[in-house]
Amino acid sequence: MTRSFLIQQIKEKKSFLCVGLDPDLEKLPPHLLSEEDPIYSFNKAIIEATEDLCVAYKPNIAFYECYGEKGWKSLRKTNRILPANCLQIADAKRGDIGNTASRYAKTFFEKESAGLEFDALTVAPYMGKDSVVPFLEFKNKWVILLALTSNEGSFDFQFLETNKREHLFETVLRSADKWGGTKENMMYVAGATRGENLSLIRKHAPDHFLLVPGVGAQGGSLSEVCKYGMTKDCGLLVNSTRSIIYASKGKDFAEKAREKALELQVEMQSELERKNII
Amino acid sequence: MTRSFLIQQIKEKKSFLCVGLDPDLEKLPPHLLSEEDPIYSFNKAIIEATEDLCVAYKPNIAFYECYGEKGWKSLRKTNRILPANCLQIADAKRGDIGNTASRYAKTFFEKESAGLEFDALTVAPYMGKDSVVPFLEFKNKWVILLALTSNEGSFDFQFLETNKREHLFETVLRSADKWGGTKENMMYVAGATRGENLSLIRKHAPDHFLLVPGVGAQGGSLSEVCKYGMTKDCGLLVNSTRSIIYASKGKDFAEKAREKALELQVEMQSELERKNII
Repeated sequence: MTRSFLIQQIKEKKSFLCVGLDPDLEKLPPHLLSEEDPIYSFNKAIIEATEDLCVAYKPNIAFYECYGEKGWKSLRKTNRILPANCLQIADAKRGDIGNTASRYAKTFFEKESAGLEFDALTVAPYMGKDSVVPFLEFKNKWVILLALTSNEGSFDFQFLETNKREHLFETVLRSADKWGGTKENMMYVAGATRGENLSLIRKHAPDHFLLVPGVGAQGGSLSEVCKYGMTKDCGLLVNSTRSIIYASKGKDFAEKAREKALELQVEMQSELERKNII
Repeated sequence: MTRSFLIQQIKEKKSFLCVGLDPDLEKLPPHLLSEEDPIYSFNKAIIEATEDLCVAYKPNIAFYECYGEKGWKSLRKTNRILPANCLQIADAKRGDIGNTASRYAKTFFEKESAGLEFDALTVAPYMGKDSVVPFLEFKNKWVILLALTSNEGSFDFQFLETNKREHLFETVLRSADKWGGTKENMMYVAGATRGENLSLIRKHAPDHFLLVPGVGAQGGSLSEVCKYGMTKDCGLLVNSTRSIIYASKGKDFAEKAREKALELQVEMQSELERKNII
């Protein structure tokens, strides 16, 4: 998916919502457990209930991988029904040396490898340039590089000050910029737990899209995120997972998921209007 | 596997060799391609030819994942035939927030999840404490944390000087030490491309086992690694992949793999003797 198509979707849907698809058999509505593939049935219902309200879906691969071959099958089937007008993000946080990174890129980007065909992959930066560049070689595909994450552990290393007189996450942003990552093929993960950190990120990445986790269940505020992170093209994908997909454990789970997604879409619409983006 | 059992194996086998199992259909001996599961057949032959010469096996998960469900099946079957007296390492370099890290831990450590039962998992440190701790909660299992990797990209961030007046990889080592990682459940990846860096690592981790990639195909030297990294308990697992498993593309591939593994074992034996470990 190209950047301009993504921006067009944001304007048409009046939303920059990304729905996380992290199915957990212990949290799924019990009536689904008798289905042949409960995870797929769950995802399908969530997707059908929310696809006009969001512009991206993001399955976290851990939630599939932990069921082995069965889980990978559910992931593949889910990938197949993700709408073409939504950015399809594999949240895998992979990162390995060059020839291995190429394998991971094929896994998630090339249908003939693992049967998957995502638009974007989250990638961990610790191993540096050659662990990221192989993903950038795929046309119309995106790297979403971890810069600042939304968890407590982000304070352990990401906020260290480096000899470049900045935080480590800032060095990551500046480096990636030199690796051939442009606003057309690179986004950054930018945690929302403290809105003002987004302005630091914007200093280095004024035009890149940011994938923002941590709104909702993890405590971040949407208006803070927009205040510090929104650009004239929106430039944000705000992810919500648990508050949407686990809004109800009853037969009404999809309906309730839609309600939660709608609440966020309405809030997002006013933010887009406030900034004259729509 | 416990630390003392691992040390016992090193002494009995007179080896601290770890064999990487990174099967690539394009590099496999052509006569195997007609088998039902060429990857499994290849791994099985390599394992049978080398198991008395090494103390660990390390499949890199990217090389299985890229074949989707089929690849995961090959991985599961391979895991089942890995010898119990070898440390079974899943080289997955996972790293995610707490509840997701728990999923990854279950995937690789708990047979009832994905059918896999590895002893150890490589983990990426960028997301900090809560992305690592969930793996430490499993008894007799190991985290192998990326500290210093052997690739060119290691210079991008791992060598940055932080406000702790040390390199980032040193801060990673010191931090992990406070997270409940002990010499009984934590090892570190310590690249061998420059032997003297191992002495910096030993400053912070005098007793931990180090998993050392980069010897052989990537240019590191075994005697350098031993000079700077070996402890009285050995404290090293030296990985070799391509030079062993792709020693020949003919019907003699397993035999040639054994020859290469034997060369390394013989070299390792003299290092162990030199240090009076055996």
